[in-house]
Amino acid sequence: MNAEGAAADGAVTAAVLVIGDEILSGRTRDTNSGTIAARLTELGIDLLEIRVVPDDMDRIVGAVNELRARHTYLFTTGGIGPTHDDITADAIAAAFGVTIDIDERARAILSTHYARPEDLTPARLRMARIPAGADLIDNPVSKAPGFRLGNVHVMAGVPKIMEAMLEAITPTLTTGRVIVSETIDCPFGEGWIAEPLGAIQALHPDVTIGSYPRFSAAGFSTRLVVRSRDGDALARAAAAVRAMLAQVAGARGVAAPDHTDII
Amino acid sequence: MNAEGAAADGAVTAAVLVIGDEILSGRTRDTNSGTIAARLTELGIDLLEIRVVPDDMDRIVGAVNELRARHTYLFTTGGIGPTHDDITADAIAAAFGVTIDIDERARAILSTHYARPEDLTPARLRMARIPAGADLIDNPVSKAPGFRLGNVHVMAGVPKIMEAMLEAITPTLTTGRVIVSETIDCPFGEGWIAEPLGAIQALHPDVTIGSYPRFSAAGFSTRLVVRSRDGDALARAAAAVRAMLAQVAGARGVAAPDHTDII
Repeated sequence: MNAEGAAADGAVTAAVLVIGDEILSGRTRDTNSGTIAARLTELGIDLLEIRVVPDDMDRIVGAVNELRARHTYLFTTGGIGPTHDDITADAIAAAFGVTIDIDERARAILSTHYARPEDLTPARLRMARIPAGADLIDNPVSKAPGFRLGNVHVMAGVPKIMEAMLEAITPTLTTGRVIVSETIDCPFGEGWIAEPLGAIQALHPDVTIGSYPRFSAAGFSTRLVVRSRDGDALARAAAAVRAMLAQVAGARGVAAPDHTDII
Repeated sequence: MNAEGAAADGAVTAAVLVIGDEILSGRTRDTNSGTIAARLTELGIDLLEIRVVPDDMDRIVGAVNELRARHTYLFTTGGIGPTHDDITADAIAAAFGVTIDIDERARAILSTHYARPEDLTPARLRMARIPAGADLIDNPVSKAPGFRLGNVHVMAGVPKIMEAMLEAITPTLTTGRVIVSETIDCPFGEGWIAEPLGAIQALHPDVTIGSYPRFSAAGFSTRLVVRSRDGDALARAAAAVRAMLAQVAGARGVAAPDHTDII
């Protein structure tokens, strides 16, 4: 790990920490982690873990300290609003062992937004509480900023605001070599192709071949995804997969399988 | 913690471990964890953590051992199919330090499913590899079973199969006292109500009041969720929240706020 936490092989890695009781109760479906995942893939940053924890100080602090030590970047979502259950900023300060107080830059942003001074209530001012040493992350939607402290980016939980904050920080991130991928839809269930597919994976160590079964009323099919940071290796492996699929179909004397109701 | 891992206060807790590169790349959106979360809430089981890890032996083993020690139950999804990237069963065996081999019960299930002996290929037989000492979990969709070992329930990643397995194991789970909740839609942004809401939370320690901001073209609103295992405490706190909302609206001389474009 270098000073920025990058892995020795140059890979840029990341974790996402989703903070909020409402996700764990099943009341709200988390979409932020999938949004961040897709963006990081575009940037060549390897997302290696997603965690969801409740609005609980000890659990947030523990997860933040574990994940920020392990990865180049940690991205958090949720818990930075004005209500009593918004404790993320305080948890980040505790995790880093720094103080937290009203930040004058953040107060100025909120003062401009809330035109009447009486509207900048103590509760709203809580959204200006920023750990010492943090940089602010712009929030074009509702103004109350996120922040970056060390390698931790703290963003809102409301998806539209989170997406705007992610846009704002993207240019500041160290990117990795982008993984290129090729998706090959296979009309057979996994059981038809698992053996030759495993053999292709063994012969092409520079690619990762993922096999994702799908189930619908028509039966099973499989989506194969070949991924690599090396475009030539990707092309060779993808060609091998296509040839294998044609061979499996031909050996069975079918253009498509005659029964796809089994894996 | 008792032998089953339940917390000393009688609460039944759980974690979910989602296994799969495709979630971390953003290619596939995980819906299984939300499905499990909602079901556990109905059962009075407190879901305290969700993690997503890649198809990597060390990372799966590490997460399994950490989470199964910490919670009454651990539920995993993904990685139990026939292809080379399906390593969950081996990882569970490694985590528990037990052997893994073809399970005769699982082989019998697959033998019945694949009518022609030549269709039960070595790849498909991989789906009968079950760690020693595990109980099988029925899979009415595609037959290849999941399994339970200790407090760990290992389920498929395909949502329809996972849901069927979850149905199958639900009657076997120790349930907790169900949390009841009341949802109160608030037409104001959080900043309008954060202070009195925090005061209500402080006065009602037996309930948890969650505040979830929403943003749409019409501006901000807030969904308030009062939760408790005590129905009377819930009713008292919810009444206090409703009275507060009426009071906030009245004090501002509006039935609904005149500007909801701010938090």
